[in-house]
Amino acid sequence: MVKKIFLLLLTLYFQLLTYPMITKPTFLVDEKKCRANIQKIADKAKRNNVIFRAHFKTHQSLAIGRWFKEAGVEKITVSSLDMARYFAPEWNDITVAFPVNFLEIDTINELASKIQLNVVIINLESVDFLLQHLQHPIGFFIKIDVGYKRTGILPDNLALVDAILERTAASDKLNFLGFLGHAGHSYKSSSYDEIEATHKESIARILPFKERYAKDYPNLILSVGDTPTCSVVEDFSMVDEIRPGNFVFYDIQQTSIGSNTTEDIAIAMACPIVAIHPDKNELIMHGGGVHFAKDAFVDPKLGTIYGRIVAQTENGWGEILEGIYVKSLSQEHGILTATDEVIKNYKVGDIVYILPVHSCLTANCFKTYQLLSGEVIERF
Amino acid sequence: MVKKIFLLLLTLYFQLLTYPMITKPTFLVDEKKCRANIQKIADKAKRNNVIFRAHFKTHQSLAIGRWFKEAGVEKITVSSLDMARYFAPEWNDITVAFPVNFLEIDTINELASKIQLNVVIINLESVDFLLQHLQHPIGFFIKIDVGYKRTGILPDNLALVDAILERTAASDKLNFLGFLGHAGHSYKSSSYDEIEATHKESIARILPFKERYAKDYPNLILSVGDTPTCSVVEDFSMVDEIRPGNFVFYDIQQTSIGSNTTEDIAIAMACPIVAIHPDKNELIMHGGGVHFAKDAFVDPKLGTIYGRIVAQTENGWGEILEGIYVKSLSQEHGILTATDEVIKNYKVGDIVYILPVHSCLTANCFKTYQLLSGEVIERF
Repeated sequence: MVKKIFLLLLTLYFQLLTYPMITKPTFLVDEKKCRANIQKIADKAKRNNVIFRAHFKTHQSLAIGRWFKEAGVEKITVSSLDMARYFAPEWNDITVAFPVNFLEIDTINELASKIQLNVVIINLESVDFLLQHLQHPIGFFIKIDVGYKRTGILPDNLALVDAILERTAASDKLNFLGFLGHAGHSYKSSSYDEIEATHKESIARILPFKERYAKDYPNLILSVGDTPTCSVVEDFSMVDEIRPGNFVFYDIQQTSIGSNTTEDIAIAMACPIVAIHPDKNELIMHGGGVHFAKDAFVDPKLGTIYGRIVAQTENGWGEILEGIYVKSLSQEHGILTATDEVIKNYKVGDIVYILPVHSCLTANCFKTYQLLSGEVIERF
Repeated sequence: MVKKIFLLLLTLYFQLLTYPMITKPTFLVDEKKCRANIQKIADKAKRNNVIFRAHFKTHQSLAIGRWFKEAGVEKITVSSLDMARYFAPEWNDITVAFPVNFLEIDTINELASKIQLNVVIINLESVDFLLQHLQHPIGFFIKIDVGYKRTGILPDNLALVDAILERTAASDKLNFLGFLGHAGHSYKSSSYDEIEATHKESIARILPFKERYAKDYPNLILSVGDTPTCSVVEDFSMVDEIRPGNFVFYDIQQTSIGSNTTEDIAIAMACPIVAIHPDKNELIMHGGGVHFAKDAFVDPKLGTIYGRIVAQTENGWGEILEGIYVKSLSQEHGILTATDEVIKNYKVGDIVYILPVHSCLTANCFKTYQLLSGEVIERF
């Protein structure tokens, strides 16, 4: 017993010795929560018998990608050709879920020579260019606008879909894989019912394409799946593939939609307090637009906020603290507002932990993330 | 004559051969405009007999820093200790214009052993920590809140200023240099008169500190200067140093304040068009929040915009085009809205040139900039 306690103390001592002290804005990742988020969607994909082609635009990290591999994920989605190039050494099947930018034909050919590269087609100009310049086979999805109204072919524009399939039918370079939709308007939801309605509506918009083209393309894939729908809806059995991304980290925006609880949020920013102004109930932290990006969130009670402060625990962080939040951000400064009661708990030199509004863009501000173990991992 | 034309054609041919084709979102810098912006402020500083300690947080580039050197600039301002470390190999006198984060004491000591490092002090906690841990001398400015109300010591809090000076008086490590103010509220101006009023008011708030402490510190410096005031106000003779930053590039936000004309904007984003939706008068470009950041601007006529499209010319870009602008940004997508008339001018695969809303945060999204000559330069 004494020996056990001694060993435990020794371990803790060495952990303290090797733990890098946080001295500046740092992006923290709770690996356990992250892996749980991955496993949850992996299990749901399995139950629905669909491919889990996770979108890697949120974490953008080879190291975190390996956690997906351990959960059985074999195919991924990214948002740019450069990001595909970063992941290509470890992933053999990558879809770039962005209307193909054929000006980057050199990168397309380079990647196509090494991996199964899949692009997204929404117009004939891209088809013609690719047919002329592709040196190696790639797959393509036709993107259907399932209601988000950002981009994609409108569901009634069958003539364009027919034309794309006609022109590519004889090609051995440009291989049709299926139809892809992104119900990004689910981000505007604020309840389960709203998310479910968006899910049903967007599925209803893409499903007829399978019915219409399955005869000629019996293996065609319907690929859908944003974080809100994949997080809360159970039934994806009518499609073939899901591609959520944000769920790996989640954030307070997603919590407000209902995608997750605060406990699921797997990342936090750690920022040093550099000034305290009790006269105006404000604290200044090092942590601004270059660390958080600038996405704001309108909290029903607090108004426009840029992040919530969480309690620090032995193993990471706990619940959201009341009476304090991130009120504004400039380039390097962040302003926290705090009540008379709460501001007393802080002193210059403290580190605060903050749940950001939008984890994708916040993660994108950093070249490295720090795990709770102290280990530093790299990003694209 | 024939020989001259032949040589000219040969040069043009080789320029074309070596000019890197733009295929993806690219941050373009017009060196000529940039140098003119630098020279204008350098001349104004000379006329006023004040130090031009340019803020490098906007361009963050050693290469652009050398253009400042050629204009006679010898001292610089940065916004973080990491940025100071990046510039330290080429700059011997650097002020980090951010409330000193003493947790980064290792970086402070490392820099202080190599260069004249100056920090900003606004509380006694930082003074005490630095007095205890500094291994090499550094300079410090006391920051006065000249009306921006973000941070700094309030002008009537003389007791705190006295206390800071008392504690540091005997130190050979922490050397008082003067008082620093930042009239960031000038960014809310929309006319010359408003900028001038802010300038006069902020100067009036910092001037009494020179009068009060000059007896004990005859060489103390008053350091002020944001881009709007430094761009339009002529008289800085009552202070000793100016520190504007954004002026090196300018942007459409600064144009709206009145700091510059559109012709002065020295940077533009080049983005490929990947989809055109004439039915909703929209074009989709590759260029989103990860390229532009997310600062929006409320145009009096157009409403909320994220950038203006400019005409492409032989040597860069020209005037702002009417009937088209950047309407919204997601992570990688940008949506341009265009009139029926204007949308006809574009096709998939075109590159559009865009003046961003906020050049500081847009530049911060890139690791390299491309000059109009085709040369690529690096950034911190």
